[in-house]
Amino acid sequence: MILALAGGVGGAKLADGLARHLPVGSLTVVVNTGDDFTPLGLHVSPDLDTVTYTLAGIANAEVGWGLAGETWNFMDALGLLGGTTWFRLGDRDLATHVERTRRLSTGESLSAITADFRARLGIAHPIHPMSDAPVRTMVDTDAGPLPFQDYFVRLRCRPIARRVWFAGIEDAGPSPGFEQALGAADLDAIVICPSNPILSVLPILDLAGVRSRLEDRRVPLIAISPIVGGKAIKGPAAKIMAELGLDASATGIAHFYGDLLDGLVVDRADTGAATAIEALGPRVLVTDTVMTSPDDRVRLARESVAFARSLAPPSLGPKSPTP
Amino acid sequence: MILALAGGVGGAKLADGLARHLPVGSLTVVVNTGDDFTPLGLHVSPDLDTVTYTLAGIANAEVGWGLAGETWNFMDALGLLGGTTWFRLGDRDLATHVERTRRLSTGESLSAITADFRARLGIAHPIHPMSDAPVRTMVDTDAGPLPFQDYFVRLRCRPIARRVWFAGIEDAGPSPGFEQALGAADLDAIVICPSNPILSVLPILDLAGVRSRLEDRRVPLIAISPIVGGKAIKGPAAKIMAELGLDASATGIAHFYGDLLDGLVVDRADTGAATAIEALGPRVLVTDTVMTSPDDRVRLARESVAFARSLAPPSLGPKSPTP
Repeated sequence: MILALAGGVGGAKLADGLARHLPVGSLTVVVNTGDDFTPLGLHVSPDLDTVTYTLAGIANAEVGWGLAGETWNFMDALGLLGGTTWFRLGDRDLATHVERTRRLSTGESLSAITADFRARLGIAHPIHPMSDAPVRTMVDTDAGPLPFQDYFVRLRCRPIARRVWFAGIEDAGPSPGFEQALGAADLDAIVICPSNPILSVLPILDLAGVRSRLEDRRVPLIAISPIVGGKAIKGPAAKIMAELGLDASATGIAHFYGDLLDGLVVDRADTGAATAIEALGPRVLVTDTVMTSPDDRVRLARESVAFARSLAPPSLGPKSPTP
Repeated sequence: MILALAGGVGGAKLADGLARHLPVGSLTVVVNTGDDFTPLGLHVSPDLDTVTYTLAGIANAEVGWGLAGETWNFMDALGLLGGTTWFRLGDRDLATHVERTRRLSTGESLSAITADFRARLGIAHPIHPMSDAPVRTMVDTDAGPLPFQDYFVRLRCRPIARRVWFAGIEDAGPSPGFEQALGAADLDAIVICPSNPILSVLPILDLAGVRSRLEDRRVPLIAISPIVGGKAIKGPAAKIMAELGLDASATGIAHFYGDLLDGLVVDRADTGAATAIEALGPRVLVTDTVMTSPDDRVRLARESVAFARSLAPPSLGPKSPTP
């Protein structure tokens, strides 16, 4: 079984490739919920929804979030009533948020609701929120501290990021499904999808007990670099990494994940960095990592899984650079 | 100034006629909120919205509720997620409920939100909820006690009504706008719109202090009968009146309002009842009360206002039947 850790758009694409490549029962997807928030009083889980919609085949492929063929009549009417419209919720998408909010208010867990939604949307593989406890990504900026969506959507990442932190993370443990996957006897490998390492993956790693569980793992852990040729494929990863003093490159990704990594998948554009990365510890797979078609997703998933399975489990010997 | 008391569809039509007929400053509309409820965790005020949408000229004229040109993508998506869909909320209509719910949760009053919405929708005349306190119409039936919308929409009034009561009415006083209108020095007349007397008007009359204020009034009070030829123009008024042992006729309406009425407007179909009704006390205006066109609304409003103004204020002499 492969455990995939994912954020939004890039993570969802690889998760979709994994879901198409792997048989049912061989994949568990765990998704960041640090960028969840409550615009209009509704509980919105952007990454969870992007992954769910993508795996259900109903995502808007052009923009990478929301639903295909969406309509915006709710938003138009909300604007007429003076409501807040900077976070765009489509008419169909809204059903997810309204129904999730209602069910959360009755005491159901985010995990249970997520499992029900994905089953109803015909997704066979389990998708779990990283935690059922609220974690809220905050960005300290030159314009003051900002909740993530204010920084990301309303202000379009224009403020300069000084620090990213996760409110509530101290009290948040992994969700039952995440916990179960981490301890599964048939776990083959852990795959960190090409998501923003700070905004999408770090909240997952920083959940209570997760990092030590990963350090003690007996299976290989790989990541797919979201940085290609010094640029983020999607989103503000490169800008934020640079502002936080990290190297916005495939090598920087290797530094960021450090000893956790047994392998790193980098794009052909970063072939030149492979030697330096392997000198840090992880083995490197160089391939095409930019997923523009559904076939790209499946191919990258297949290559990444084969790469991960080819690596020695961390407990069976010291990691060493390629000879 | 005319104070109009209204429920949903029929009340909204006459309120619209009054709004077109009377200059700004000469009309206050107070609307039943007993059938408010919270499907999907959202605060829905069906009568308030029907009146607001109707006066804004954006109501769905065919069905009498909701918005013209509405779309239903939210509801379709909600159905796919297993949500409750028996109460149909259109995509545009939903903005009203989501934004109202959000604003109520911040402590704003229903009155303040209603006033803001109607101003934003370009309605010049004030529209007030009957109360800012929650009142919930309950129907005891042969299928047990039911919240009004369950009885009305989900079960389509099929259960036999035994009793109607208003949960919370003991603690609910009139809204500030209603209170102000009742005490206004320039109040000319009170008009009970052709709404369901038990389901739409009784909650307004039963609010703490309202009935005694109406009994002590110094201006005429008239009603327009919602029953025409023994049938309700719209909705379940006739069925419910019969099941609760009331006479589903214009005369029954006169009995129901009793001493409150100085005048009753009845349809030409009920010409034969005029003498019996006047024998009970109120004067009778016989005219066409079925409003099928905008012109009908204005004509009925004009005739009703003229009729009300022609009546002696109750404090200036005993009511007597037509000689």
